[in-house]
Amino acid sequence: MAIKQNNVDVLVVGAGPAGLMCAFGLARAGVNVRIVDQRPQKVAAGQADGIQPRTIEVFQSYGIADRLLKEGNHMHMATFYGPNADGGIELIERVPDVTAPTARYPFEVTLHQGAIEAIFLDNMMELGVQVDRPTIPISLKLFEDETALEDPESYPVQVVLQHLDSGEGQLNETEIVNAKYVVGADGAHSWVRKTLGIAMEGEQTNYVWGVIDMVPDTDFPDVRSKSAIHSNNGSCMIIPREGDKIRVYIQLGTDSVGASNGRLDKSRIQIGPEQLLEVARKSFHPYTFKNPKQFDWWTIYIIGQRVASKFSVKDRVFIAGDACHTHSPKAGQGMNASMNDSYNLVWKLTHVLRGWVRRSLLETYGFERHLYASQLINFDKNFAKLFSGKPRSEINMDGVSHEEFLMAFQTFGGFTSGTSVHYEESAIVNKRHQALAKNLTVGERVPPDLLIRAADWRPYNIQDLLPSDTKFKVLVFTGDVSDTTQLTTVQNLEDSLQQADSFLTKAPSKAMFDFISICSTSKRKIVYNVVPPLFRSHWSKVFVDDVDLTGTRGGRLYSSYGVGLSGAVVVVRPDGYVGTITPLEDASDLNNYFSRFMI
Amino acid sequence: MAIKQNNVDVLVVGAGPAGLMCAFGLARAGVNVRIVDQRPQKVAAGQADGIQPRTIEVFQSYGIADRLLKEGNHMHMATFYGPNADGGIELIERVPDVTAPTARYPFEVTLHQGAIEAIFLDNMMELGVQVDRPTIPISLKLFEDETALEDPESYPVQVVLQHLDSGEGQLNETEIVNAKYVVGADGAHSWVRKTLGIAMEGEQTNYVWGVIDMVPDTDFPDVRSKSAIHSNNGSCMIIPREGDKIRVYIQLGTDSVGASNGRLDKSRIQIGPEQLLEVARKSFHPYTFKNPKQFDWWTIYIIGQRVASKFSVKDRVFIAGDACHTHSPKAGQGMNASMNDSYNLVWKLTHVLRGWVRRSLLETYGFERHLYASQLINFDKNFAKLFSGKPRSEINMDGVSHEEFLMAFQTFGGFTSGTSVHYEESAIVNKRHQALAKNLTVGERVPPDLLIRAADWRPYNIQDLLPSDTKFKVLVFTGDVSDTTQLTTVQNLEDSLQQADSFLTKAPSKAMFDFISICSTSKRKIVYNVVPPLFRSHWSKVFVDDVDLTGTRGGRLYSSYGVGLSGAVVVVRPDGYVGTITPLEDASDLNNYFSRFMI
Repeated sequence: MAIKQNNVDVLVVGAGPAGLMCAFGLARAGVNVRIVDQRPQKVAAGQADGIQPRTIEVFQSYGIADRLLKEGNHMHMATFYGPNADGGIELIERVPDVTAPTARYPFEVTLHQGAIEAIFLDNMMELGVQVDRPTIPISLKLFEDETALEDPESYPVQVVLQHLDSGEGQLNETEIVNAKYVVGADGAHSWVRKTLGIAMEGEQTNYVWGVIDMVPDTDFPDVRSKSAIHSNNGSCMIIPREGDKIRVYIQLGTDSVGASNGRLDKSRIQIGPEQLLEVARKSFHPYTFKNPKQFDWWTIYIIGQRVASKFSVKDRVFIAGDACHTHSPKAGQGMNASMNDSYNLVWKLTHVLRGWVRRSLLETYGFERHLYASQLINFDKNFAKLFSGKPRSEINMDGVSHEEFLMAFQTFGGFTSGTSVHYEESAIVNKRHQALAKNLTVGERVPPDLLIRAADWRPYNIQDLLPSDTKFKVLVFTGDVSDTTQLTTVQNLEDSLQQADSFLTKAPSKAMFDFISICSTSKRKIVYNVVPPLFRSHWSKVFVDDVDLTGTRGGRLYSSYGVGLSGAVVVVRPDGYVGTITPLEDASDLNNYFSRFMI
Repeated sequence: MAIKQNNVDVLVVGAGPAGLMCAFGLARAGVNVRIVDQRPQKVAAGQADGIQPRTIEVFQSYGIADRLLKEGNHMHMATFYGPNADGGIELIERVPDVTAPTARYPFEVTLHQGAIEAIFLDNMMELGVQVDRPTIPISLKLFEDETALEDPESYPVQVVLQHLDSGEGQLNETEIVNAKYVVGADGAHSWVRKTLGIAMEGEQTNYVWGVIDMVPDTDFPDVRSKSAIHSNNGSCMIIPREGDKIRVYIQLGTDSVGASNGRLDKSRIQIGPEQLLEVARKSFHPYTFKNPKQFDWWTIYIIGQRVASKFSVKDRVFIAGDACHTHSPKAGQGMNASMNDSYNLVWKLTHVLRGWVRRSLLETYGFERHLYASQLINFDKNFAKLFSGKPRSEINMDGVSHEEFLMAFQTFGGFTSGTSVHYEESAIVNKRHQALAKNLTVGERVPPDLLIRAADWRPYNIQDLLPSDTKFKVLVFTGDVSDTTQLTTVQNLEDSLQQADSFLTKAPSKAMFDFISICSTSKRKIVYNVVPPLFRSHWSKVFVDDVDLTGTRGGRLYSSYGVGLSGAVVVVRPDGYVGTITPLEDASDLNNYFSRFMI
């Protein structure tokens, strides 16, 4: 029997958060994509569960945040307990869980990984994409011919897949998939990464932690906040979950479970969730935890902090998520870093596949995400060390003080929330005219703020004008269009953009761009249809920087972004990051920006 | 062939907004309900389309506002145009469309009636209830035997239904329905009302208006706001709709369409939508409207302002919606008044059917809604007169000035928004202790405000703690529970409520009540589990009056409601209206309140 051969634009290996975000994003963009996973079913319990503020914004940009926010627990508060004089613990302080002034959603969402995966799976199903499972890749070959590698029509990656018996009487079946691109999102032990021979760099630690998920029966009053317990009898952390569930992280002595040289000796692990809870009880004294009806999930792990040496081979095969980086789960970054890897890659692959941009754009994926991963590991090292350390006391002056821990917790707020992730100068990040909007940082995501739609006064969060629809958003900060001199400047820009040498005229497709006008004119005065037609393709595309009808919000966009009344043009990448800022008076910098990557 | 006979708890006649709200609300409460309508399909276009702020709150209380807000247009702005010196019109002023400081949603939603009906139909479908259509009632008999009328188990209303051929080959079929209750929501020409012999009281006018729905092609810049045009060539009003559609109301001379004595002589109406637009063009000069590709809907109507003399017969058959009141459409009240009639009735029927309350509770339906309808007609008379009048000018000093019109528009804001609808003293409205929360008006709906959940700092709008789940909400404003004296007062109240003579002990079901604690203790200090167990059936039931994490919202509930630090108990009816306020120190007023209607 001949082996089936199929072609696909993108093959995604692994249907965890990174793989699903990748396949979902590509499917949403209309890309021909397939996704396979070795597990027969999606995750039912446990595993990663924290969604950070920036990740919620990304969900919102796809219109899928509502379900996440509805199903998940919202974690607003962090609580710190330390040793008291009686040998137990006492409340030291309650603080906001998220320290990120620009966060649109100033909290974390906790929800079990299976429910998060279901959001992607259900949305993909509507787009006609389902996960092939259980399916494993058994070989991967990348053509070495440079011409083929650069040919947009070639399928230079050949993956042999084995479809396993799913228990429903199907036979094993082998299939050859010829792909233009492959994304390995197959976890910490990534087969794709190993097959490509990409090394992991970094170290293991000997910090060993246990985890239990349960509905608690307790008199501890902060069971619904992120509670960090530093006691002289060990450290614990509570993460509240959906419904009445909580997760408890419990510090274990390395000896007790046989950890050495960064590896767990699994044969020596003889404890289960009951024993983990028993260890936790020592930390929580004088508060008590009764035995729960059941443990929903439990595990024991050792912290490793490593990053892949590169994120791609020939920009034809990529790795994303845990395949690229592993670190401790306690700062709640894992699933977020993973999904945001894919989110960074999706629009770039889409643009290349549509023939809109040069293949070299793909280099920015590894450039941007490897740097981020390195920062993540550095952060994690500091955080894990603080968290795993003993509390400072009169006896143990080398211990970790509450102040140290809190400072780390809050200092890294922008980073852990994902709201101040920063991409450096590249083909798609040009900081030359940063001064034109000094608080709208080039290389960072556009922070939320309120605008009023000129034609009907409806208030909008600017982030809702920046959906993940694969378009570059060209935000034209027009200044005051009721001023004829200023209006002339805006009209001149329109003229320039209609010349033969403009990026717009040369663009392979007008569908690459969405023009949005933001005027400093007041809402009572503006006549929206004076804005030049290029900058208002529809009445809904003109906005003013004015207060909303409650009088308490809005009217601060120009000032908070630092845009002057002479205006500016801000190019926002399809992933919501500021690509560049250029003057309103002159189209040349705008043309130059796009010429660096556009076909 | 024997005629089918069936029993039902509630039969709803008419599946417009009033009938659907009624059937949906009852179905949601688990009541055995049927609904019939004479139309073979739901409305496809035109008809009523404005949803007022309070009605949006009602949708939200059922968890169905999201779809309404997503599909509908949000109307935030009202614009006034008047005569200019050149014989055309000019912008006089732009103002907020809604003048209602406490509105949670400070705008109107416009969406065609069919889409609104679909929200109910889809939600009812999930509950297993569908509209029988086309079906007409052909007779209605109400038993006159008083014992049967008062017997909770009797079915004293017999309605004969005729199921018509729906065009799918079904035969006509007659069915006898024996109902405990019947609701006639069958429109302005209500068959139920006529069969019951209920008179309509009030007058017709000779104001004649035409209406066209279209996607405009115009240079008029305020086509996305509610625009009132007062010109010397007639009056018009624009209501923007979903998508790019608008509705235009056009004033017509009475002669032109043969109106006299409050009736349209339909044989003399010889104009269509093209002619209506032509009339409108005169008012809009110098702005132009090109002919649209199509008119989505159009009609001509004469304003009538009438109220039914009573809303029920023997509290076994009720009428609701247009069957009870007709008035002009221009203040956008019709569909709102209709749905809120049903909303008022639903929980009362539900409680009676469950055996929780005495049948006399049903008297409050007519009492509350008839008074409201009378106020509505009075408002409408003033508004329609102002709107249909000529603009004031040097020639026409008796005309209506912009200031008069604007004042009427804004003065009636609370009424038209539905946010200050007021129910008078009755078995379920007791104003005795109004002074304990002087800004939380007994007989009005609970205005929105922010609270913080004690256990996890999650911010909540208080309205979201008051879902339409048929329960009375007992809001215990505890004061500061970290103060031991105050906590003792709260504990004493709990003790009282557990005595044999308390309303709670005597209640037919504990499911009638939901206790929620609102503490004035700060969020950093509160230990939520000190609140007595009766007032926190779950960790999610304890709230504090404190600012949220943005620091800009919350912390003003006690002061904005006028509740002192010694606390109070506020009973909120299942429809979100304040039923009574009682002191925290003493359960007797609370017991008295419920004793007036509870079985």
